[in-house]
Amino acid sequence: MIKSKKKLLFDKSSFQERHIGPRDSQISEMLAVIGVNSLDSMVDATVPEEIRMKSTCAVRACSEEEVLSELHNMAKKNQIKKSQIGMGYHDTVTPAVILRNILENPGWYTAYTPYQPEIAQGRLEALINFQQMICDLTSMDLANASLLDEATAAAEAMGMIHRICKKDNLSFFIDNDCLPQTIAVIKTRANALGLKIQIGDPFADLNPSHNFGVLLQYPGVNGAIHDFTSLVQKIHEANGLVAVAADPLSLVLLRPPGEWGADIVIGNTQRFGVPLGFGGPHAAYIATREKYKRALPGRIIGVSVDRLGRSAFRMALQTREQHIRREKATSNVCTSQALLAIIAGMYAVWHGPRGIKRIAQNISNLTSLLACRLKKRGVLLLNKNWFDTLVIKSIDADVIHARASKYGFNLRKIDKFHIGVSINEVNVCEDIFKLVEIITGKADEKKKFDVQVIKQESGIPIKLLRSSRILQHPIFNTHQSETSMMRYLRCLEGKDLALNRAMIPLGSCTMKLNSAVEMIPITWPGFAKIHPFAPLEQVTGYLDLISRLETQLCDITGFFAVSLQPNAGSQGEYAGLLAILAYHKARGDDDRDICLIPASAHGTNPASAVMANMQIIVIECDKFGNIDLKDLKTKAKINANKLGALMVTYPSTHGVFEPEIKEICNIVHEHGGLVYMDGANFQAMVCVCKPGEFGPDVMHMNLHKTFCIPHGGGGPGVGPIGVVKRLAPYLPNHPIVDQAGPKTGIGAISSAPWGSAGILPISWAYIELMGFEGLKKATEVAILAANYVARCLEQDGNYKILFKGQGGFVAHECIIDTRQMQKEANITVDDISKRLIDYGFHGPTMSWPVMHTLMIEPTESEPKEELDRFIRAMRGIRHEIDKIQSGEWPIDDNPLVNAPHTAEMITTENWPHPYSRELAVFPEEELLKDKYWPATARINNEYGDKYLVCTCPSIDTFRTDINAAKVKLNN
Amino acid sequence: MIKSKKKLLFDKSSFQERHIGPRDSQISEMLAVIGVNSLDSMVDATVPEEIRMKSTCAVRACSEEEVLSELHNMAKKNQIKKSQIGMGYHDTVTPAVILRNILENPGWYTAYTPYQPEIAQGRLEALINFQQMICDLTSMDLANASLLDEATAAAEAMGMIHRICKKDNLSFFIDNDCLPQTIAVIKTRANALGLKIQIGDPFADLNPSHNFGVLLQYPGVNGAIHDFTSLVQKIHEANGLVAVAADPLSLVLLRPPGEWGADIVIGNTQRFGVPLGFGGPHAAYIATREKYKRALPGRIIGVSVDRLGRSAFRMALQTREQHIRREKATSNVCTSQALLAIIAGMYAVWHGPRGIKRIAQNISNLTSLLACRLKKRGVLLLNKNWFDTLVIKSIDADVIHARASKYGFNLRKIDKFHIGVSINEVNVCEDIFKLVEIITGKADEKKKFDVQVIKQESGIPIKLLRSSRILQHPIFNTHQSETSMMRYLRCLEGKDLALNRAMIPLGSCTMKLNSAVEMIPITWPGFAKIHPFAPLEQVTGYLDLISRLETQLCDITGFFAVSLQPNAGSQGEYAGLLAILAYHKARGDDDRDICLIPASAHGTNPASAVMANMQIIVIECDKFGNIDLKDLKTKAKINANKLGALMVTYPSTHGVFEPEIKEICNIVHEHGGLVYMDGANFQAMVCVCKPGEFGPDVMHMNLHKTFCIPHGGGGPGVGPIGVVKRLAPYLPNHPIVDQAGPKTGIGAISSAPWGSAGILPISWAYIELMGFEGLKKATEVAILAANYVARCLEQDGNYKILFKGQGGFVAHECIIDTRQMQKEANITVDDISKRLIDYGFHGPTMSWPVMHTLMIEPTESEPKEELDRFIRAMRGIRHEIDKIQSGEWPIDDNPLVNAPHTAEMITTENWPHPYSRELAVFPEEELLKDKYWPATARINNEYGDKYLVCTCPSIDTFRTDINAAKVKLNN
Repeated sequence: MIKSKKKLLFDKSSFQERHIGPRDSQISEMLAVIGVNSLDSMVDATVPEEIRMKSTCAVRACSEEEVLSELHNMAKKNQIKKSQIGMGYHDTVTPAVILRNILENPGWYTAYTPYQPEIAQGRLEALINFQQMICDLTSMDLANASLLDEATAAAEAMGMIHRICKKDNLSFFIDNDCLPQTIAVIKTRANALGLKIQIGDPFADLNPSHNFGVLLQYPGVNGAIHDFTSLVQKIHEANGLVAVAADPLSLVLLRPPGEWGADIVIGNTQRFGVPLGFGGPHAAYIATREKYKRALPGRIIGVSVDRLGRSAFRMALQTREQHIRREKATSNVCTSQALLAIIAGMYAVWHGPRGIKRIAQNISNLTSLLACRLKKRGVLLLNKNWFDTLVIKSIDADVIHARASKYGFNLRKIDKFHIGVSINEVNVCEDIFKLVEIITGKADEKKKFDVQVIKQESGIPIKLLRSSRILQHPIFNTHQSETSMMRYLRCLEGKDLALNRAMIPLGSCTMKLNSAVEMIPITWPGFAKIHPFAPLEQVTGYLDLISRLETQLCDITGFFAVSLQPNAGSQGEYAGLLAILAYHKARGDDDRDICLIPASAHGTNPASAVMANMQIIVIECDKFGNIDLKDLKTKAKINANKLGALMVTYPSTHGVFEPEIKEICNIVHEHGGLVYMDGANFQAMVCVCKPGEFGPDVMHMNLHKTFCIPHGGGGPGVGPIGVVKRLAPYLPNHPIVDQAGPKTGIGAISSAPWGSAGILPISWAYIELMGFEGLKKATEVAILAANYVARCLEQDGNYKILFKGQGGFVAHECIIDTRQMQKEANITVDDISKRLIDYGFHGPTMSWPVMHTLMIEPTESEPKEELDRFIRAMRGIRHEIDKIQSGEWPIDDNPLVNAPHTAEMITTENWPHPYSRELAVFPEEELLKDKYWPATARINNEYGDKYLVCTCPSIDTFRTDINAAKVKLNN
Repeated sequence: MIKSKKKLLFDKSSFQERHIGPRDSQISEMLAVIGVNSLDSMVDATVPEEIRMKSTCAVRACSEEEVLSELHNMAKKNQIKKSQIGMGYHDTVTPAVILRNILENPGWYTAYTPYQPEIAQGRLEALINFQQMICDLTSMDLANASLLDEATAAAEAMGMIHRICKKDNLSFFIDNDCLPQTIAVIKTRANALGLKIQIGDPFADLNPSHNFGVLLQYPGVNGAIHDFTSLVQKIHEANGLVAVAADPLSLVLLRPPGEWGADIVIGNTQRFGVPLGFGGPHAAYIATREKYKRALPGRIIGVSVDRLGRSAFRMALQTREQHIRREKATSNVCTSQALLAIIAGMYAVWHGPRGIKRIAQNISNLTSLLACRLKKRGVLLLNKNWFDTLVIKSIDADVIHARASKYGFNLRKIDKFHIGVSINEVNVCEDIFKLVEIITGKADEKKKFDVQVIKQESGIPIKLLRSSRILQHPIFNTHQSETSMMRYLRCLEGKDLALNRAMIPLGSCTMKLNSAVEMIPITWPGFAKIHPFAPLEQVTGYLDLISRLETQLCDITGFFAVSLQPNAGSQGEYAGLLAILAYHKARGDDDRDICLIPASAHGTNPASAVMANMQIIVIECDKFGNIDLKDLKTKAKINANKLGALMVTYPSTHGVFEPEIKEICNIVHEHGGLVYMDGANFQAMVCVCKPGEFGPDVMHMNLHKTFCIPHGGGGPGVGPIGVVKRLAPYLPNHPIVDQAGPKTGIGAISSAPWGSAGILPISWAYIELMGFEGLKKATEVAILAANYVARCLEQDGNYKILFKGQGGFVAHECIIDTRQMQKEANITVDDISKRLIDYGFHGPTMSWPVMHTLMIEPTESEPKEELDRFIRAMRGIRHEIDKIQSGEWPIDDNPLVNAPHTAEMITTENWPHPYSRELAVFPEEELLKDKYWPATARINNEYGDKYLVCTCPSIDTFRTDINAAKVKLNN
């Protein structure tokens, strides 16, 4: 029994046993199936020897308690102050019912992007609530389901206007009252694209005939509220378009931009109940007018109908998605901030129009009270009107900031003589008197206040007071009691299939465990309630976390430096390409703007290259999906003088370790280019290979895939980049926080200095919990699981696996070819995916990277029992297809084309199908123990795109639908 | 817009708007239906004027943020130290996956006691896992689903032995190595019952012919592990029985009591992942042999079959429950610690046999290491063997405790010369060296240790080493990865209908909102990680909370003092009666042992009186369910010399405010008795009446009903008592913590000084959030909701409401008479309740307080929409019953007798019923939006009681069942 000292006294359960699904004995069984003796020999046969990592990693494995305790210490080192800094970030109360039932509930946070709408009606409804809320607040026709952050939304707005106006010779005008981080991100974007920008006072400096578009801030960063009506008119007359960055809470009281002519409205919904989190993640919004709807970037949730004619939600206009457009892409946006948008939308559902107005009015009143008291005390205010922000002129700025800090407040540091104060939801009257004392140095003797004075002091110009109503839809007027809200959230969650129910075998998406211990700290106040621009001496816990995570990631990837700023993989790609271009330019290589991209690349790659203004040359792939070396050599050589970069995904998008990767890198380097590695598949290499050691110069890592940040139903994402030493000077930086990046950097690419800092504890904890050995084993088991599934599906000729490496093995995912089934039984990948829903699974990735294929990534976290259940389901479906091929079931009436089957469908009197009800919904007996019921039958995508509706359907729809469905079902 | 200063600047959303379901406009609608103008006039018409409260309450309403911040301050004031105190409480790691997915998940914590097994298969399975775990660890045949705490379990064991042995002249022997709090609680119990007890060394003092039973502790409180085999044999030879209090974790390594002859084994499962919580709530266990199974108290989960012949779980032997036995009751236990038992059972599911052994072995090894190092340093140990506890002799005890505190440790204070040290799951090797330093005063220079020495030093005698296996059932060997565990928990949760899905209209059970903000603090370390016997200067946060909650409760009830020690309403009753008896005795009234109990009383009342050894005289009720005043007067007069108490529930168990309550109290007082008020229905009086002002001398409050502690699927409960001034000296106290009660008190009735202190933040927060006005409105709306439901159900003669007050109004619940339906359509209350499941509801309370009735308590938290949905469902069912009465549907084949309908039932090819599948499962169209599917068809209770199986069924059962069900369904 007693084996060693370690065993004896320290043998606690290790986290990796919990994270990795299969038990050791099951790993042996799986190895036997794929015909190797050990994980080591499997890796030997799968991963090219020359790229295997030579060094080890310093990361040791900690217990759950140690990690929680360490994070607790970090959180304690972050000082929680009343934050009056503003600048786009405001403290807010996350309603406890939302905190507990969404943000802390795996049913919501482990969900995937709703590509399969039938299993995602809950989160789709939550997202359309968000869109409805944005349309209401902005008075625009159409909003998307969120963007990464306010600055990115502003940059996207500029891009959209540029695409619509098509006037390359003119410049884009930016109101100098815009948030500085927004201006910085737009500058980076414009600079890369070669767009001219002009920054100034729109009333003084703007000449409509010189500008193709304008970005205004409403209210301005310094609190001013201007009437832009006539200005907008002038711009429109000159055929320019106007984007407005607007605080959505202010729009509750202010005349919304939609009513004074704005063409696009963008902003940050953080203050709708989303924790500050030292900068993110938060959901930005973008809204526009009907006529520009097809130019709107990002994901839009729309209403369509299912096969029974019942209304159902799904993502609209999916065909616009970047993987279709590739080099014609206009944006590389391919994710949203779903979880955060859901929270913001639910905040509106919870408070309703009255509650939201009350919150906005309180803030406005408290600000007026502050203005009134300060004026009485002779303080000089710079702004004449306000919603929540005042700017104070004082020669004592430093003294005031010091006093604020002593009293537990943070004010905005503008310069030596100006101080900003922004009021938020958590402020109470007492705070105002404290603030007066802080600013004037003396306690405010008159603690009572005169309502009439405040009324007169209202900061909102009368003609800019909002008169139109908001949030009139019943969804915002029904769930104001907690019982009702809790049930609504559960009801929506119950409609969805997330990772807490079943495997989500999505190729390239790495739906692995997001463990509870990793998630717990992110809602601690010490991480949640920190403003991104809080003085750095107050956030040593965050700085410690960031630096330790950067060290971990450098250690694991072999790179020299890491930037955590990019908020998504796409942003990482973009930042990486900009770093490469900056490097070339710094060496005088101004023309190196050619980007080689293999034909097999994910569409985001060319889209990011387009955004970096690079010229894309496609490299051919052979029939195995590998890069055609000859073509690469030829094209690298021809373009040697202009070669900027190669973008390569590794292991390849076809799910194999290309043996020539080192040579590929060499070829590019020899011709003056640098190598950008798309780290979407880094999952297959962690602690087995270090990309920084075998050629690539930059790589992004998806912390939300490989490092356990949950998908949240389609965001948040975090896409840091690692770079070799020579690229380190060109990492992103930030206009407000110097320490966030090198002075020589490429500028800001996100609003917040360290991107979505609030969720970094998750990845840090994961790495710390697993340690080097655990991470290595996770990689190995992920590869094993993919090969095990592939081998089992191949057996008896059930399915054909499309690509394999030289040893006959796949990497961490496998691709199934369904072309024959389509030919012989008219069965599409869609049919198989929808039928998998009946078996209780989310469908795999469809038709990517090759049409009519399914890509499956089981990950290391899936228990063997679940892999086997999936294999049984796939075999069951294969047998069903056989029956169609053999003519037993007609091509237009069989369990696949009718899938998924809802409870309603099998409850009708009339059952006209050639298979039984039982086969329809319980094709496997074990489903009797735990059945997932889809909330809707198969959804008609074309219908929804044709009749685009992206706001909440009316309450009558439900009843109309029932009747429609009844007619269908009984005929 | 601007109405008042308050409105202007402080008008935040108030919690009571969130807690109370109906909006103000809906309240008006509901008032109109019942025919009154305002809540005030409704109360005037319902609640007798003479008992209406005259004074107000000081409680003001706070916002959610204020309350969280205040609780955060309290939590911070509790110092978290490494607790080596032991004595039945040990620090433990609550696995994060269990913390998040059970303890912090309303799907689990808002569930009700599983009286309706069809909607409770998830928690029933979780509880049977707990029973299986206990059977395995103790090697006994049968365990129940938990008891309130270890001491109560010990007292119940004594009672059980006493009932079995029936030897009143002999005494019960208690090992003096038992936990002091256990001894104290048994003393209280024995004292009340007039049982003799003897405390001593079982090897020296026990004479089997003088003792009918024995309680041993294994290992003892001081760590000793004795071989009791031959002792037990001797006791058995003398026809005595043996109960053993055993730490379940020690039994992993020790020969379990079941293997050396114990008849009953009891203990605390707290260290299986349940937070310390300053003493509770925790789940105690009790296990026994097959032959005594029908004497086992408390709730037992058993296996039975459903109507399809499929195995299903339900509570076994329900007919034994106290409300049936009344004055013949042998125990007043009527709740368990379900939520905590579920956690402890899941801890075993999560760790499995290997993990649990690893934890136990670590603890044992660390203790051995400590013993070994201490001996080497010349420290005198009192015990020669040990599992986790050592007792050290030292003249420096005070110095050592001071040093421990400085180093962040708490040791057990035995006396001036003895110190106890107990090792637990969270201790690591480093702690051992710290402890050596603390105890010896010098750092342990030899930080390395010799494995061989520790092996030799093992504290467990070789012949007491366990050789039998534990936890062999697959359920303990399947879910060791977090993905698997998370899905298992979700799968079980998904089977159940809890408050997060639908109204649970249980009469007398007050299933109101348990809001997220109230629940959040209980898992904070500052409340969770505090040992109940930590020095009081370290727990000022808890003491503050306790004193503030006591003040709130005194203020609200009008009583002079409150004791929070009782862990359930039944314990409150028992403590209250003991206080009354002690008062009489203190005045020389030794014979006042008659307890008057109305015929309508809840069965727990007579059961508690039996436990207090009182003589019960039943008072008749009139046809309205009111106490027959004449009978009361007569019986009070006849028994004037012996009258101890009247127990009365108010408002009555018939759901009305009896107008004569004041007179009733007067009659009892006039004849020398005191009045015990059962506060089960206090929900109907909060901030409307103060019982302390109109007659009652004692009352228990159900914090888990009226004050928002969640039901947790059948516990925890908290049942404090409030008393008038003259009874205050007779409140419970505690042997270890003097401050927990008066010196003159009745002794301990719970293991922990303040009972289930860990969940008191919930009730404190609720009161603080609601404030006086909010609490008052809650009461009013609860009464309104009951009257609204009653009135709507009465309409069109659908249902008959059985009891009403003088004004034609009910109190907070109403009773429906179904006798006619039974007579005319053979429809039982069971049929109606099961049919409600098809409509998505939990059934009401059945056949209580009157046979063939349904009692409905909607509470103030239910939104009007949900009340209306329930009313529609009840009307729908009424129409269905009409069709049976009219002969359209046969008596033995209709939607009621076949209810609930499972998905499996409606999926069969063959549908032989005279109603449609659609009517079966979607009787209302709105169910298409959100359908609850019961996991099993109707369960056969008789079968399960006849063939009693209370352990996990074998894995083959599932498959056998499917075939059985198929045959049934298709024939």
